[in-house]
Amino acid sequence: MLGIESQVGSPKLEAHMVKVEVLDHGFVELIDVMGSDEEVENAARISYGKGTRKVSQTRNLIRYLMRHKHTSPFEMCEVKFHIKLPIFVMRQLVRHRTANLNEYSGRYSIMSDEFYLPDEDYLQPQSQDNKQGREEGELGNTISDIHFEINRINDGAWMAYDNMINWNVAKELARVVLPVSNYTEVIWKTDLHNFFHFVKLRSDKHSQREIRDYADAMYHLVFPHFPLCCEAFEHYVRNAVTFSEQEMDVIKELLEHADTKAGLAGCMADYEGWHLGKRETKEFLEKIGKE
Amino acid sequence: MLGIESQVGSPKLEAHMVKVEVLDHGFVELIDVMGSDEEVENAARISYGKGTRKVSQTRNLIRYLMRHKHTSPFEMCEVKFHIKLPIFVMRQLVRHRTANLNEYSGRYSIMSDEFYLPDEDYLQPQSQDNKQGREEGELGNTISDIHFEINRINDGAWMAYDNMINWNVAKELARVVLPVSNYTEVIWKTDLHNFFHFVKLRSDKHSQREIRDYADAMYHLVFPHFPLCCEAFEHYVRNAVTFSEQEMDVIKELLEHADTKAGLAGCMADYEGWHLGKRETKEFLEKIGKE
Amino acid sequence: MLGIESQVGSPKLEAHMVKVEVLDHGFVELIDVMGSDEEVENAARISYGKGTRKVSQTRNLIRYLMRHKHTSPFEMCEVKFHIKLPIFVMRQLVRHRTANLNEYSGRYSIMSDEFYLPDEDYLQPQSQDNKQGREEGELGNTISDIHFEINRINDGAWMAYDNMINWNVAKELARVVLPVSNYTEVIWKTDLHNFFHFVKLRSDKHSQREIRDYADAMYHLVFPHFPLCCEAFEHYVRNAVTFSEQEMDVIKELLEHADTKAGLAGCMADYEGWHLGKRETKEFLEKIGKE
Amino acid sequence: MLGIESQVGSPKLEAHMVKVEVLDHGFVELIDVMGSDEEVENAARISYGKGTRKVSQTRNLIRYLMRHKHTSPFEMCEVKFHIKLPIFVMRQLVRHRTANLNEYSGRYSIMSDEFYLPDEDYLQPQSQDNKQGREEGELGNTISDIHFEINRINDGAWMAYDNMINWNVAKELARVVLPVSNYTEVIWKTDLHNFFHFVKLRSDKHSQREIRDYADAMYHLVFPHFPLCCEAFEHYVRNAVTFSEQEMDVIKELLEHADTKAGLAGCMADYEGWHLGKRETKEFLEKIGKE
Repeated sequence: MLGIESQVGSPKLEAHMVKVEVLDHGFVELIDVMGSDEEVENAARISYGKGTRKVSQTRNLIRYLMRHKHTSPFEMCEVKFHIKLPIFVMRQLVRHRTANLNEYSGRYSIMSDEFYLPDEDYLQPQSQDNKQGREEGELGNTISDIHFEINRINDGAWMAYDNMINWNVAKELARVVLPVSNYTEVIWKTDLHNFFHFVKLRSDKHSQREIRDYADAMYHLVFPHFPLCCEAFEHYVRNAVTFSEQEMDVIKELLEHADTKAGLAGCMADYEGWHLGKRETKEFLEKIGKE
Repeated sequence: MLGIESQVGSPKLEAHMVKVEVLDHGFVELIDVMGSDEEVENAARISYGKGTRKVSQTRNLIRYLMRHKHTSPFEMCEVKFHIKLPIFVMRQLVRHRTANLNEYSGRYSIMSDEFYLPDEDYLQPQSQDNKQGREEGELGNTISDIHFEINRINDGAWMAYDNMINWNVAKELARVVLPVSNYTEVIWKTDLHNFFHFVKLRSDKHSQREIRDYADAMYHLVFPHFPLCCEAFEHYVRNAVTFSEQEMDVIKELLEHADTKAGLAGCMADYEGWHLGKRETKEFLEKIGKE
Repeated sequence: MLGIESQVGSPKLEAHMVKVEVLDHGFVELIDVMGSDEEVENAARISYGKGTRKVSQTRNLIRYLMRHKHTSPFEMCEVKFHIKLPIFVMRQLVRHRTANLNEYSGRYSIMSDEFYLPDEDYLQPQSQDNKQGREEGELGNTISDIHFEINRINDGAWMAYDNMINWNVAKELARVVLPVSNYTEVIWKTDLHNFFHFVKLRSDKHSQREIRDYADAMYHLVFPHFPLCCEAFEHYVRNAVTFSEQEMDVIKELLEHADTKAGLAGCMADYEGWHLGKRETKEFLEKIGKE
Repeated sequence: MLGIESQVGSPKLEAHMVKVEVLDHGFVELIDVMGSDEEVENAARISYGKGTRKVSQTRNLIRYLMRHKHTSPFEMCEVKFHIKLPIFVMRQLVRHRTANLNEYSGRYSIMSDEFYLPDEDYLQPQSQDNKQGREEGELGNTISDIHFEINRINDGAWMAYDNMINWNVAKELARVVLPVSNYTEVIWKTDLHNFFHFVKLRSDKHSQREIRDYADAMYHLVFPHFPLCCEAFEHYVRNAVTFSEQEMDVIKELLEHADTKAGLAGCMADYEGWHLGKRETKEFLEKIGKE
């Protein structure tokens, strides 16, 4: 629809996958990248100057930065995407205010005639538990009847739009009948720190499944360009668990019961097996009050 | 629909209008204000400290700040609104990234059954001149036929949404059939500097008429709380005109032709009449190369 | 030095402490507040609309928002301070980019003749452990000799500055000799969400002790205006503990050893005692893999 | 001092100058660039989609975007610098909040022993006119005496710092004696739109001459990577002139006097010579009320 030529020409980008299809008509394309794991390290080293020689490995430094929320070096990299997505997903994407974006304009151009129709396995009942989610279960009508209902609206809306365009109604007005399932396109760019924040929030299970698909696709494309940063992000942010002050009381109490010498010692002996180095082991024991 | 009690209880807010209706079902309500003309002055004076005694009047100082783009003092004030607006206008409002906002959630709650239907005088043809606007002229069908077409979609979409809700389709999915004319609500807050920037852009004639109505209503409510700041904004920003380097060459050339002594002198004699003080007259003569 | 009148006139502010002295010549003054615990709730309810009736208590709602990082409602409140602080602390404060600020200008006005001289208990040796901190221990000289050294520089720099001003050197140049211990002043304003983020980072033990004193003083002044938000912030953010993916493996393994029925059951029986309600208990058991 | 290897290895960067020396010990180095004139065009075209074919030339499109303040496409490019600069200049640079930065840390590492000493032609008296500037004129002492005074403070401060480091005072404390003329280093990155805004403000004659030198050097390095964007920036932003509502009254009145047919016609005939195309001529006549 857009007809812009892919900007992706550099060997760097071409070495990895650049495009993933998402939902029924959407896609995510990684069109440019600034930086690399090494540039994150370079940016960090400016803070440390001469005193920095001993922290010698890129991986260790990146993990240290991620663990201690030293976010500035990650801000020195950028990722830029061309995304095709339904308007209701765009409305969630735009809430990430540190990103730069340029969206297809329905005031200037004819809107797309493509609409999102949820697949059978996406069409689920309201969650009982989570007021803003869905869950497995029975619906009050068949999938084909629901698809018919949705298609009826999409087709009708498109026809009304098309009629109004033919009657020369201004495009900025005619579009008001189009549903939020209508596809739009956007160039979207953000720095690596804010990209991770976006992925953390939008690939979360509380996020709407449709934007989760986009977040997952974007992360998949970015990973090979920043493998060490992404690994650290997964370990220290995405898969990390936070306990409140009250929960920590419970954890500590529970661990009191665990503190038969045998149990704890057996556990500690395996620390290296869990890849907690010396410094992280010390940090961990502090957190659970066993230092 | 929302049922939140108006937070507006302070005598300060109640002394002025707090709510304006916009479009067919929308409104703008000013629910809180931080600061005043005097607080802009106070914030500015911290930059100047002891050296500041001579610039004695609030109005002069505020005009000086606005003219020279010293924006920080204006950032020290905030305005907060409760707004009801169609989704397509919300999609323009959300692009102002320095604002804070909290929008009604279609994942969590049932959407409104109200939709924007453009009035007869808003329903105009595509502008020939401006690819993203409308203009006076003939449409290819009657207003009532077009209204019928729009209402048909709105009613159909609402019925489909209602059916899906009854079949227990998750709210976050059922809503995808609703058109962007559907009304939503938002709490929206920004600082005074960015509010002025918003008003400059969105009350401009190139802006879509619907969001212009909102911007005008918001400005109308804010004005009495910051009369001196608003006056300065109008004089130095909203009604100011910027000429490019090339246009300035033309202006200067034209003024050469004007520079019969009589013409210019007559003009200069009236400067005070146009409210250009001594300092601004000097700045003006510099700009047109007549210093 | 500034001579601005305190803007604090509203009964709301006067009901609580508004000013705290910090370090030897500094202070923090809370000069304006927008919002309250109730306004956070009001802002949140707009997302929930009609579906919201059951979540009835302000405190519960605020705790839910904080726990689940629904940050927008907290952005609807603002706190504004007048702060006097050394330049090196200002250099840390300014890094919080979402804040608005207006600083005393050394280009426009004569700088202050006050300089930060660290108290005896602040003057500590370089930490062995933490390359960017200090710790208890012996210094290589007496406090009075070190004070003499610092005062010598402060006095000399002030005299040089004063001389240059007398020789009519431009203020913006003369100031370059002043050390970063020199006091400056700033009006600083931010929203409540970003204020909490600032407090989390700057009242942390890894933060430099001088800015910690400022962060603590600011938090102390803000607390009475948002007691429920602050309580939730302490429980779910400031005193929360985050474990990495690898640390969670260790925790879960340790809790396996704890899982004698007696131990865990005893623990669980007391949950209410630790103030974990039903929903949080469920969340907790999920986190430790015992759901 | 830093010892980081230049990241500049791509042929794209090497084709142009990458480093400029600034002041006595400072420099600006362009270490990475994302995008180009063509990518600005590509980003813009996404807004226009199918309707866009006629606006065919990159240069025309870029000029149109700049003139009408369509800033999003310029945000799709990034420039990243390694800069060495005095602390007082850093304090001005950091105020541009949309930039990302990572600065050398005086808590972690030994500070530089280099200090800014203003050259003879930079050492000027306080401006009579402009309370925050300098101007040509007589000083109350000789340059060499002033240099002696400044050097005395720099040397003394460095010695005191060095002494305290030797007495094992924590680095984060010892540094408080160092003057704001002390050099620091930073990695600084921003998008092209905000870079232009920075250049507009900081290369202005009201800006302090030292940061102007940095802004000019940065612009010089960026220019060859975005020649069309930079040209448009100069014509429509940097060298543009804005007239207030009152000033426009004067301009229009003056042009009345100019409106001998001969004068205006002569002027208009040359429009193409001034490179105002048909569309801009129309816009211009509107601005001066001659449409």
